Amino acid sequence: MSKSVKALADVEALLPHILKRQNIARYEDGCVLIGDRANYPFEKSFVRCQSVEDVAVAIETMVTQGVGPWVSAVHAMAMRAEQLGSETAAHQLAGLETAKTRLAQTRPTNTLIRYRLEDVFGVAKMALDSGQDTTAAILTRITELLDQMYGYYARRARFGADLLADGDGVLTMCFAETSFVLCLALAKRDGKILTAYVPETRPYLQGARLTAPSLHEIGIDVKLICDNMPAALMAEGRIQKYMTAADLITMDGHVVNKVGTFQNAITAQHHNIPYYAFAWGCDRNKPDRASIEIEHRDPADIRACRGVATTTDNIGAIYPAFDITPPELVTGVITRHGVLSPFSLKEGFE
Amino acid sequence: MSKSVKALADVEALLPHILKRQNIARYEDGCVLIGDRANYPFEKSFVRCQSVEDVAVAIETMVTQGVGPWVSAVHAMAMRAEQLGSETAAHQLAGLETAKTRLAQTRPTNTLIRYRLEDVFGVAKMALDSGQDTTAAILTRITELLDQMYGYYARRARFGADLLADGDGVLTMCFAETSFVLCLALAKRDGKILTAYVPETRPYLQGARLTAPSLHEIGIDVKLICDNMPAALMAEGRIQKYMTAADLITMDGHVVNKVGTFQNAITAQHHNIPYYAFAWGCDRNKPDRASIEIEHRDPADIRACRGVATTTDNIGAIYPAFDITPPELVTGVITRHGVLSPFSLKEGFE
Repeated sequence: MSKSVKALADVEALLPHILKRQNIARYEDGCVLIGDRANYPFEKSFVRCQSVEDVAVAIETMVTQGVGPWVSAVHAMAMRAEQLGSETAAHQLAGLETAKTRLAQTRPTNTLIRYRLEDVFGVAKMALDSGQDTTAAILTRITELLDQMYGYYARRARFGADLLADGDGVLTMCFAETSFVLCLALAKRDGKILTAYVPETRPYLQGARLTAPSLHEIGIDVKLICDNMPAALMAEGRIQKYMTAADLITMDGHVVNKVGTFQNAITAQHHNIPYYAFAWGCDRNKPDRASIEIEHRDPADIRACRGVATTTDNIGAIYPAFDITPPELVTGVITRHGVLSPFSLKEGFE
Repeated sequence: MSKSVKALADVEALLPHILKRQNIARYEDGCVLIGDRANYPFEKSFVRCQSVEDVAVAIETMVTQGVGPWVSAVHAMAMRAEQLGSETAAHQLAGLETAKTRLAQTRPTNTLIRYRLEDVFGVAKMALDSGQDTTAAILTRITELLDQMYGYYARRARFGADLLADGDGVLTMCFAETSFVLCLALAKRDGKILTAYVPETRPYLQGARLTAPSLHEIGIDVKLICDNMPAALMAEGRIQKYMTAADLITMDGHVVNKVGTFQNAITAQHHNIPYYAFAWGCDRNKPDRASIEIEHRDPADIRACRGVATTTDNIGAIYPAFDITPPELVTGVITRHGVLSPFSLKEGFE
């Protein structure tokens, strides 16, 4: 085992069940298995997908979040390549292109899924051109992408952990995935005692169902709260840092993330609490906030919680799934290159 | 019917089921009937209380909110007076004092319940001194208090309605009771078309269960949202006013209200949206924020929604029930004397 691969394995060992690579999504026995987050932590199960459409629907129905959509989507491409294996090269390519288009449609706000699909599509095309096994080529590429991803996670987590002080209360939002969980794990390994304040994140409860159990599993002191409580706890002096993921960051430093991220950032600034967003980089196709299309979801989700009605069916509702935090409210963007100013992302990535 | 009583009846007719006086709490057949908000709007039922302890437990277990606790508590005093009717005057007085003490303990943050209990206790004492029927005296006093309360509601609602413009989106929090609902009803009667954005208000969902159905019932366009969405909607330009109730207001203008009120006020100010709190007045026993004891409730409530678990039992949680909004974030306090500056409440009430 090379030194860097061993270092990666050490870091992955710190992660809770739900964030280990094999539990996000994998290709097995001709199916894509997607770690089912919809019933986590009550059940640790997988959704077994036998077609591209199965995977697309799983992504659309929120079986997985964060990097899960693209990891699932590229595994769907591997599955589709194997299904098309006996066809002509032209048919295989056309079939993979159809699959790619369908999978890219699943998340309008998520750009990474499109990049990764183009990437593995390009790999498949090259494999076809040179007469190689397309499925094997895609799977090899996926391993490379995941190695790279966990390596980047580890770098970001290291930069994040160094921002935390012993005794800090750390507010987050939604499920900030491996960067954040690993950041707290590394800070803990460094001997810092932390408390994580985790908003439940209605309506899907990613905070209650994913973040809180993940942090609890790795031994962090967790305080689950409702989404209306961050400012009250800031006023009590309990919170010293605010850290979230970012679904995407525009070239001019606007953070697009789960709805609620923005109002926590406003209240953090009001209390002089720094806000850091973990990001893989800014999005070259999104120059500014005007280029962001905010996804609205089914208002019926607002009228229920875990399948139980919270009001009557005749009540109107509205469900913006994401919001936009302007760079003025962002203290730093934690990237693999370091903690960058949101106003200097373009330079940081050139 | 006198003119003012008729005007009051007209205004009460505009109210939804849950806010009509007989549905808050009443004394009937030797029992106190409390409108059960715990299962509203799914069931419109009453909790039937046969003892002071029954009423105290009902208040403590959130069967009713807003003015409900004091209206229930004073009816419990009437019931207790009748139960003690055959005792000596000294025993009756001692029994009523015990009842008053127990009922006052039910809500540490709510001062009004103590004022009203002292008021009816004083009435009972005078009735005993002059050999009158204490139960009848208390019930007569309750009618006076409710007439006065609805009269004040109507005045506050009128001042509030005049602050709203045709086309306004109005954010609220929790269940701001009659002042707010009547304010929107009067504005609607004035020909203004409004949209109410109603945060569900976790964990008890007063917004989803009480505010949204109440406003829908009187014909207001309602958009139910989650507690993490107000800022996102402000950024979209949907919200022009923010209006809540106030559990209490300190002499120096701090608004104590359901947790979440404060962070909405911060985000409202960030978007230059005025924030108005409806209040019966400031509290002469609460000079400043240091005099406020914030009630913390059972953390288990955070781990569930309408009885369904949102995470596993081993996850830590914290539940501050109220928060404090400083006067710098309060545009105006809507009182029966008009819309006052939070910095001038003392003068306004002297």
